[in-house]
Amino acid sequence: MTQDTVFPPNPKALDAMLDWANQRIQRGPDPRHGAQSVAALAARLDGAITAKGMDSARAFALFSDVIVPSTRPFDHPTSLAFVASAPSPAALGFDAVLGSAGIFAGNWDGGSGAIYAENQALAWLSSLAGWPATSGGVFVSGGTMGNLSALHAARTAYPGPRPDRWRILASAEAHSSITAAARVMDAEVISVPTDEGGRMDADSARHALSQTSGVFAIVANAGATNCGAIDDLAGLARLAAEQGLWLHVDGAYGLAAMTDPTQRAQFDGIEQADSFTVDPHKWLFAPYDSCALLYRDPAKGRAAHGQRASYLDTLDGQAWNPSDYAIHLTRRARGLPLWFSLVTYGTEAYAKAIRQTRDIAEAIAQGITDTPGLELILGPQLTVLLFRAPGLDDDAIDAWAEAQRRSGALLCLPTRWRGEKVLRICVVNPNTDPDHVLTVLRTLP
Amino acid sequence: MTQDTVFPPNPKALDAMLDWANQRIQRGPDPRHGAQSVAALAARLDGAITAKGMDSARAFALFSDVIVPSTRPFDHPTSLAFVASAPSPAALGFDAVLGSAGIFAGNWDGGSGAIYAENQALAWLSSLAGWPATSGGVFVSGGTMGNLSALHAARTAYPGPRPDRWRILASAEAHSSITAAARVMDAEVISVPTDEGGRMDADSARHALSQTSGVFAIVANAGATNCGAIDDLAGLARLAAEQGLWLHVDGAYGLAAMTDPTQRAQFDGIEQADSFTVDPHKWLFAPYDSCALLYRDPAKGRAAHGQRASYLDTLDGQAWNPSDYAIHLTRRARGLPLWFSLVTYGTEAYAKAIRQTRDIAEAIAQGITDTPGLELILGPQLTVLLFRAPGLDDDAIDAWAEAQRRSGALLCLPTRWRGEKVLRICVVNPNTDPDHVLTVLRTLP
Repeated sequence: MTQDTVFPPNPKALDAMLDWANQRIQRGPDPRHGAQSVAALAARLDGAITAKGMDSARAFALFSDVIVPSTRPFDHPTSLAFVASAPSPAALGFDAVLGSAGIFAGNWDGGSGAIYAENQALAWLSSLAGWPATSGGVFVSGGTMGNLSALHAARTAYPGPRPDRWRILASAEAHSSITAAARVMDAEVISVPTDEGGRMDADSARHALSQTSGVFAIVANAGATNCGAIDDLAGLARLAAEQGLWLHVDGAYGLAAMTDPTQRAQFDGIEQADSFTVDPHKWLFAPYDSCALLYRDPAKGRAAHGQRASYLDTLDGQAWNPSDYAIHLTRRARGLPLWFSLVTYGTEAYAKAIRQTRDIAEAIAQGITDTPGLELILGPQLTVLLFRAPGLDDDAIDAWAEAQRRSGALLCLPTRWRGEKVLRICVVNPNTDPDHVLTVLRTLP
Repeated sequence: MTQDTVFPPNPKALDAMLDWANQRIQRGPDPRHGAQSVAALAARLDGAITAKGMDSARAFALFSDVIVPSTRPFDHPTSLAFVASAPSPAALGFDAVLGSAGIFAGNWDGGSGAIYAENQALAWLSSLAGWPATSGGVFVSGGTMGNLSALHAARTAYPGPRPDRWRILASAEAHSSITAAARVMDAEVISVPTDEGGRMDADSARHALSQTSGVFAIVANAGATNCGAIDDLAGLARLAAEQGLWLHVDGAYGLAAMTDPTQRAQFDGIEQADSFTVDPHKWLFAPYDSCALLYRDPAKGRAAHGQRASYLDTLDGQAWNPSDYAIHLTRRARGLPLWFSLVTYGTEAYAKAIRQTRDIAEAIAQGITDTPGLELILGPQLTVLLFRAPGLDDDAIDAWAEAQRRSGALLCLPTRWRGEKVLRICVVNPNTDPDHVLTVLRTLP
């Protein structure tokens, strides 16, 4: 049987594409890039998919010249909105390699080496939390998947009888993914009021618990997205133990700070949690998309998540199969860019980078306090801070933020805090220059 | 404030890494590679993460010389187990670029250009299904996530009162991810017996429905993983319409065959489905990990999945935000490698590649039929076939399969069919040589 190659390789185009990747990693993104309208994109991209195809160079130009400039450069040091991203050069270079290597990391049979290395990175995270060496988990695609997978394990492990309604206790500052996860699980979120810093304490949680039933898990924040708050993990751990509940710590953004010994004490109590999540693509210098999900007792993850099928019978059930620990089967080895960057730079560089972003956030907070016409409202908690410019109304705040975004000076967007439109900064990039940030912020009043 | 660079770039190491990626794409994987023991990996990898880090070249050698050889080369033409992967050179090269570009594709604000292009690829898939141009969806990390997201949308859209127990109707040959999704949703799967080919018909489904309550969705197979069966989509669509139920078509593997006009008729009825999934990393020549999830009425996806939070208020709710259509918020633009490969090679090349894999499966089936001592049991359905070697007991089958895997001759593993241990082949690679496969299979009897 003769076959011709339906998908011919194009070595010249491949060279040019990888050269582009090389330059992109070394030069970084352009901060003036941003979203385009549907009409603008249609004018440039419509008709790209054809029956016969097109020259690779022309196809790649659609990406480099049209698509990339119409995406927001979250990984630029001036991106201080949402929780941005700051992948290290080694992590980015490695992600490029990973795509080309085609590794199936869903089970040991497919990806043993990759999984072993991912597990080294997970073990490092778990050691920072003070967990036993018997803990373990898996890298999933993001915080939503991590939280949902942990909560499903929590419900599966619930020792009591099935209640009329399943419920999850979480802070009013819990990430939107907790509500999303609860909806998928057909569970209800009991929202616990927080203190002035956005923190849930054990007394408030205990009170909320006494008013309801069917709760199988408490979700604690370790760095709430909107305000950076860390809940009373030690108190909540005691409460969870006393009530026989699962304690999950959502540290998608904030648990990265465990890396820095000087910031570790804020997370005391996490030793007693049943699961936690932290996203390497947020503040651990890895590219999109990865979330580390850890179980103190991985057997509980396996009991909830293992998929069985006859065509999988040849797989070794005794091996570490990542598909047994979350809601997925096929997966790329998305934890490896973190692993490679850690191996290359070392854990002390991570501690230093985290400490440096914290110093940057403190310098910005101090600068805001020192600037007439600006008022610091809250923070920095970890590296999130909220502030206002009392002379500006809501429209003026929006206009200022938009002008800074367009010029590429700064991505600093408004949020709401206790009903008020305020400005928010979250620093995750060790290359953010606080003097530059303050120079721009001083154009506000 | 002075800052030094905590994560210095290393241009020389980056060159070497991207050169490795280039060679890997052009030369392909080594079929003799495979899983290693924990002990073997520990001997090579333990101690990789240190306080001070290590030279990039040494770190990269851990990947290239230890990790890669201990992973299974699913993308090799001799990999015929599970559902393998056969990414085109353009798709692989592009995945490498994508990693370096750091695009946040969770919402329009972050990734407009990437999302527009992903939506072009989704629109192509939806046009193959005969769906209206108003349909839409999102690329998620895999079939489990796609099926779960679709089923959550189905339950959210369910018009009736909340039942005592939520139920999903699916074929006995449904993928394990359907059971996994149901568990997460606290729902029950009603398993419908199939015919001798593994196919669920509308009468069996109707009978099962009449025996139960609380059903909100029917899940139909379009290419069951174990046997390739395509359910009676037209009959099931009529049944779903008559009963006011959501019809989801799980086409993770099989719906790729819609690409080939000569195979499209097998899927008649999909025009009436409410959602479907197809994984580009299976039989659409894209790298891990991506699943295309389509809704006929995307508003139903949005109603189920949109995440709201104050720090997201600046986002345009009118724009196409991929996080509104599945269980995720942050995401990489995982549909782009398919888009780039489609743009480069054209849709006719896709049709040809799919037709070619089908021809290969037919040639292998014919060869098995013609070989004394081998018996074709079922297929090819799409490109899956089941066969036996009556002279061999179960242990001998396992030993034969393991020997072929170790030598790199063929990855062809056993599965179970109607209780019997049988051999299974699934072809997704247009470069698989049927003569080579038959030569190896003839060592069986």
